[in-house]
Amino acid sequence: MLTHFDGKGQAHMVDVSDKDVTSRTAVAQGEVRMSAATLALATDGGAKKGDVLGVARLAGIMGAKRTADLIPLCHPLPITKVAVELTPDTDLPGIRITATVRTTGQTGVEMEALTAVSVAALTIYDMLKAAEKGMEIGAIRLVRKEGGKSGRYEAP
Amino acid sequence: MLTHFDGKGQAHMVDVSDKDVTSRTAVAQGEVRMSAATLALATDGGAKKGDVLGVARLAGIMGAKRTADLIPLCHPLPITKVAVELTPDTDLPGIRITATVRTTGQTGVEMEALTAVSVAALTIYDMLKAAEKGMEIGAIRLVRKEGGKSGRYEAP
Amino acid sequence: MLTHFDGKGQAHMVDVSDKDVTSRTAVAQGEVRMSAATLALATDGGAKKGDVLGVARLAGIMGAKRTADLIPLCHPLPITKVAVELTPDTDLPGIRITATVRTTGQTGVEMEALTAVSVAALTIYDMLKAAEKGMEIGAIRLVRKEGGKSGRYEAP
Amino acid sequence: MLTHFDGKGQAHMVDVSDKDVTSRTAVAQGEVRMSAATLALATDGGAKKGDVLGVARLAGIMGAKRTADLIPLCHPLPITKVAVELTPDTDLPGIRITATVRTTGQTGVEMEALTAVSVAALTIYDMLKAAEKGMEIGAIRLVRKEGGKSGRYEAP
Amino acid sequence: MLTHFDGKGQAHMVDVSDKDVTSRTAVAQGEVRMSAATLALATDGGAKKGDVLGVARLAGIMGAKRTADLIPLCHPLPITKVAVELTPDTDLPGIRITATVRTTGQTGVEMEALTAVSVAALTIYDMLKAAEKGMEIGAIRLVRKEGGKSGRYEAP
Amino acid sequence: MLTHFDGKGQAHMVDVSDKDVTSRTAVAQGEVRMSAATLALATDGGAKKGDVLGVARLAGIMGAKRTADLIPLCHPLPITKVAVELTPDTDLPGIRITATVRTTGQTGVEMEALTAVSVAALTIYDMLKAAEKGMEIGAIRLVRKEGGKSGRYEAP
Repeated sequence: MLTHFDGKGQAHMVDVSDKDVTSRTAVAQGEVRMSAATLALATDGGAKKGDVLGVARLAGIMGAKRTADLIPLCHPLPITKVAVELTPDTDLPGIRITATVRTTGQTGVEMEALTAVSVAALTIYDMLKAAEKGMEIGAIRLVRKEGGKSGRYEAP
Repeated sequence: MLTHFDGKGQAHMVDVSDKDVTSRTAVAQGEVRMSAATLALATDGGAKKGDVLGVARLAGIMGAKRTADLIPLCHPLPITKVAVELTPDTDLPGIRITATVRTTGQTGVEMEALTAVSVAALTIYDMLKAAEKGMEIGAIRLVRKEGGKSGRYEAP
Repeated sequence: MLTHFDGKGQAHMVDVSDKDVTSRTAVAQGEVRMSAATLALATDGGAKKGDVLGVARLAGIMGAKRTADLIPLCHPLPITKVAVELTPDTDLPGIRITATVRTTGQTGVEMEALTAVSVAALTIYDMLKAAEKGMEIGAIRLVRKEGGKSGRYEAP
Repeated sequence: MLTHFDGKGQAHMVDVSDKDVTSRTAVAQGEVRMSAATLALATDGGAKKGDVLGVARLAGIMGAKRTADLIPLCHPLPITKVAVELTPDTDLPGIRITATVRTTGQTGVEMEALTAVSVAALTIYDMLKAAEKGMEIGAIRLVRKEGGKSGRYEAP
Repeated sequence: MLTHFDGKGQAHMVDVSDKDVTSRTAVAQGEVRMSAATLALATDGGAKKGDVLGVARLAGIMGAKRTADLIPLCHPLPITKVAVELTPDTDLPGIRITATVRTTGQTGVEMEALTAVSVAALTIYDMLKAAEKGMEIGAIRLVRKEGGKSGRYEAP
Repeated sequence: MLTHFDGKGQAHMVDVSDKDVTSRTAVAQGEVRMSAATLALATDGGAKKGDVLGVARLAGIMGAKRTADLIPLCHPLPITKVAVELTPDTDLPGIRITATVRTTGQTGVEMEALTAVSVAALTIYDMLKAAEKGMEIGAIRLVRKEGGKSGRYEAP
């Protein structure tokens, strides 16, 4: 059942040579929870405060490209699109992150989307940690997945 | 207040040249929530099932070494220790992750510890996603930090 | 005759733009020779001893993905499968390594298979060097190659 | 006894925080065996043939810098010297490789020297494989190690 | 107009999923200006002087493969050819660099060619800086581009 | 005279083990020339146009951290500061780039500063190439260097 192990229970990068090359999309989400005061620091940008969200967005996009380097059994994939959306939410309070990744390939891009969210979240933490060490990264999950043999997945 | 930006609000890698070289430790935690059935798959290892936790632990350790590559304004650091603890928890249900990182250097290793946790969590997701796509990664936070000018931090 | 050099003897990454995209497989082997006592340490695992072979297998798989980063004139390739088999051999005494790599691409994956074997061997050395510094890595060679214009190769 | 595992048998990057920062050197060797005809191709350079040894030497040096990326439990180290010597040997026949690596740090550089040899050997294979697929990489071993608490090691 | 930003002005890796997979070529140029004496050092090679141009050529080729790692919004691409030509020019005086890159993919390889030129130029600077710190890297530009929807571009 | 080659003319990473660990700074400059219309696109930012300079600044900072990966004979260094300044200049017309890098180490950081400038320049090109393919990157040079045995260098 766990495809990343062979019949003897040994980890391997599963053979996808015979899978179809199809268009595949994955969307993942996550959030960084912080105090209202820290959120204000991150969003009341202006020239003097710096662009926390811009830096985190870029880190997330670049992180998606490093997925196969980081996740041991992930296949390297020619990513064709990465978008990372960062939305401050004063109710949380914190920043919501959504990453969308596409490829035309033989495996899905769930891990690329989840990695983009994770690296964007870590970068937000890094940039704001001087103000608040108690921030929490969470709610990282796959929201949607399209393409490939297993078809469409939509989180409940 | 946000040290990663200069007086004009432009991102920079802050100058730590004059900070003391001291022993620094950081501990971070996180978790991957899943169904009890998926957790059983991950832990009822044995020769045939494969070592999900062993793969994730290694990925977390290697991930810590990639921190400065992933987080744009992080300083490269000569890490002197990384340990990643993975504990199945049937109450969660899921897997709890704790990473401990040490260095002897001029900046702290919070980001290295948080990155180790994140990469271990992503790897757990990757290895179990064939069984359950709805797993959630969360509760990633700094638990403890020692060394350096700002002194000891202990999460409440 | 040496395709990695042009007519003037200058190194280049040879043009494979016009080669067919076909399914390609390569199998490589190697071994790490050690004393019988060290081999026992590596294989009498159990909970307390640690999984030397599991760590080396993962390192070999990840190493295959870094081939084009390491070998100057290697083409980057979308690897579709990597498996690394580690077999303790008390006659050697030591550990035999076999790596199988597949791609659907324009060049072969010999270098990826040989790199997987080499990185797995180096990792075995690293994990056991506290017990024996005199281990020797050897017998690294291509065993089989399929696909592409040059056809099947089987080592004698 | 195997320092790369903790008391529970779990892989970790061992804590070297309290080890002395000393000057450390490691020398490793290896060889690529080939037919006399292939060796002649590699060494009868001249402007038209291309500099096989020069490319392999550079790859070995750059490979040493990637050691901590490749070997899961290796500490990142500020390497202060890498030299790779390549000596054609018509008796072998083949090419002998010697790598010398130095650092001023808390752990030894055996793995860096062995990795330099391995990457140089793989690169020689890559550059000559159009002429001979049956080459064999072998005899990779640590020749000498100096510095650090365990003192000098000289291979018998 | 700037495709690297979405409608809200946020950086993204633009979606090329629906672009045709075609053969694409890009040629870029650049130069490193230096004193006539330094140029003589670089080119009067011989066994004793070392192969400055050979090292820079290799660095440029390897640099092309790192383009998507370095340029935040660049798509990873399966490069099928890289050639870097280095021509000493006593009139400049200095070294002229030309890089040619090909792929069969969904986006162009301008950035790969420009990166190859830049890394080769930086490497020339590195190897000769002990002789002259005042060298200048310049005239880096796209010379030609073929393939893809936008068609052929030839620098005026 | 060329320290990157040994007595036999073979490339090596020169031994800096015995050099003092001192504070070192390097400043490098460069520019990207473009039409006035393209420059206006890059600088008349606002929410809708996107932050070209912010993306390039970040790419330059991250590029400095990759220097030892890119330049074959560069020593890996624990960088303690990177700042990249981007100044639109309507007289050029184009964007002027200045990078400042510091370390406390055994070798200088000229290459890190020059690499930061080069990667920032390449990123500017990448982001604006949809508007103008004829931009030119140039005038990349070392402006100032402090620390280490060779002392202060100031470009004329």
